[in-house]
Amino acid sequence: MKNLLILICSLLIFSCQPKHQEVEIIAAEDPLPSWNDTPNKKSIIEFVTAVTTEGDAKFVPVAERIATFDNDGTLWCEQPLYFEFLFSIDAVRYAGKENHALITSPEMKALVAGDMKTFMQRGEKGLMEALMISHTAMSVDEFNTLTKSWLDTAVHKRFGKKYGELTYQPMVELLQYLRDKQFKTYIVSGGTTAFMRNFAEGTYGIPPEQTVGTMFAAEFVDKDGSYQVNLKPQLFHFDDKEGKPVAIYQFIGRKPILAFGNSDGDLQMLQWTSTNSLPNLELILHHTDSVREYAYDRESHIGKLDKALDEGRQKGWVIVDMEKDFKTVFSFQ
Amino acid sequence: MKNLLILICSLLIFSCQPKHQEVEIIAAEDPLPSWNDTPNKKSIIEFVTAVTTEGDAKFVPVAERIATFDNDGTLWCEQPLYFEFLFSIDAVRYAGKENHALITSPEMKALVAGDMKTFMQRGEKGLMEALMISHTAMSVDEFNTLTKSWLDTAVHKRFGKKYGELTYQPMVELLQYLRDKQFKTYIVSGGTTAFMRNFAEGTYGIPPEQTVGTMFAAEFVDKDGSYQVNLKPQLFHFDDKEGKPVAIYQFIGRKPILAFGNSDGDLQMLQWTSTNSLPNLELILHHTDSVREYAYDRESHIGKLDKALDEGRQKGWVIVDMEKDFKTVFSFQ
Repeated sequence: MKNLLILICSLLIFSCQPKHQEVEIIAAEDPLPSWNDTPNKKSIIEFVTAVTTEGDAKFVPVAERIATFDNDGTLWCEQPLYFEFLFSIDAVRYAGKENHALITSPEMKALVAGDMKTFMQRGEKGLMEALMISHTAMSVDEFNTLTKSWLDTAVHKRFGKKYGELTYQPMVELLQYLRDKQFKTYIVSGGTTAFMRNFAEGTYGIPPEQTVGTMFAAEFVDKDGSYQVNLKPQLFHFDDKEGKPVAIYQFIGRKPILAFGNSDGDLQMLQWTSTNSLPNLELILHHTDSVREYAYDRESHIGKLDKALDEGRQKGWVIVDMEKDFKTVFSFQ
Repeated sequence: MKNLLILICSLLIFSCQPKHQEVEIIAAEDPLPSWNDTPNKKSIIEFVTAVTTEGDAKFVPVAERIATFDNDGTLWCEQPLYFEFLFSIDAVRYAGKENHALITSPEMKALVAGDMKTFMQRGEKGLMEALMISHTAMSVDEFNTLTKSWLDTAVHKRFGKKYGELTYQPMVELLQYLRDKQFKTYIVSGGTTAFMRNFAEGTYGIPPEQTVGTMFAAEFVDKDGSYQVNLKPQLFHFDDKEGKPVAIYQFIGRKPILAFGNSDGDLQMLQWTSTNSLPNLELILHHTDSVREYAYDRESHIGKLDKALDEGRQKGWVIVDMEKDFKTVFSFQ
């Protein structure tokens, strides 16, 4: 995470490269029209067909058709910095105007003053502090209002689009395809549950009760008969690496038969899924497309894919190649 | 909890009173055949009909039809002691034979030796210690095996039935009726998620991913490529009183439109549900039937119903009277 300062700076000066080529997707027989007809697409369709066809040796009952997806870098873009961190940076600046009780460190005060250089001196710890400040010490309703307002207005520097538009069209199709085949689709992501619930239903069709992520503690407050749930500046669950299979146990209680990630943070979720006694499929999205999106893996500060790439190749997991497998990346391209 | 010793003793000497009158339930037009035709039954059916009828002023979209149920004393019997505590007592005795690392206190050693008097000197704290010992320091698979084995063999002293048979027939019907009307039915209970998941799907039709309760921490362990999730002797979430609306937020993320409890431990869940801006219904099961089940409320050590009874009456919640409203209590009666 040593080069995050460079990332933040590049983010701030990133040239605006909107692309307006519209692609109209019409699904006919093909459940995945935004995927090229590659062996990987074939593997996905063959697996889904087998586990949902009664009489097939690989048939899996409906109740066990659990699919878990990472969000950042798997369902939507995560470069040049996790979008939730961008939200937090904006939110702390906004909150700081009202003398927020949690804004006490020099780095947070610098952030409020627009001094990004000082802010970034704390690296990832500063980002985590901004995350906590922007997500807690308020009611859930207040947080949701804040998030929705940001999602409605903030724009990605390179693509000139709102963040909710930076979802991968082939992945949205895959989620729908799985649901059509009576899978329950879940998000299991390092991003916070609180943040993701503000767009996951609209953009992916994944309801709040199937959106699992990092969580801050919450408390129920009774103010003379007016009740609210407040978010507290205290971590409840950190949903990355080993935290993912733990969350799958605590929040879902069934082992998935399909898991899809894109980074080393997803490795344990993929490992856990691969031990299901039922037929199962593990997939990794490899970011190989610097033209339509970004190309990064082993050396990336965001979404580092190194160990999981080796283990996935060794174990025969499906390594989706964005450049080769995605006919369309974003719906607006 | 001061009289728990008496409770335990009475449990151990309870006379066996099996009842073998079989009642065959045939659902025709009536979605709730095990309920008497009382005003309370009418209130339930009118509410469900209104919120699921398009064009009705009270119509609620399918996605928002969340119903949460307490388990102990609401869906199944909880007397003379929460069944999960009975499991824990048996499990600690069993575990103790193998010199369990967590069995160190004199009270736990007494329990293993069958000395209930010494064990109960620690009251509720002893029960909580037994709960933790019986639920943790093992893999999830091991815990499930242990629980299922107990549920398959242990018998309730008074009714002479396995605990899984002590579910309330009218409540099982209500759960099914709600699901038929496209509600998502959840358990939100003080009992542990880990324990309940071993019977909730079979007895209530509620899947693991909709079973929420008290949770111990878990960890993901990689032993040379053989993965497991282990339960740790450390509380992750305590799902009682204020913990229930908190769990509803963290694990479900939508405010219910229907909540059903039976004790003061459910009060906050009912309060939270009552503030839904959508039409909502709050229900309390009042245990009034000493002949077919038990009669208890304000003075009970288990399932104390005092504040919630007053508040429910004042706010017009549906107070279900087991004696008057339940045509059948248990399916075997």
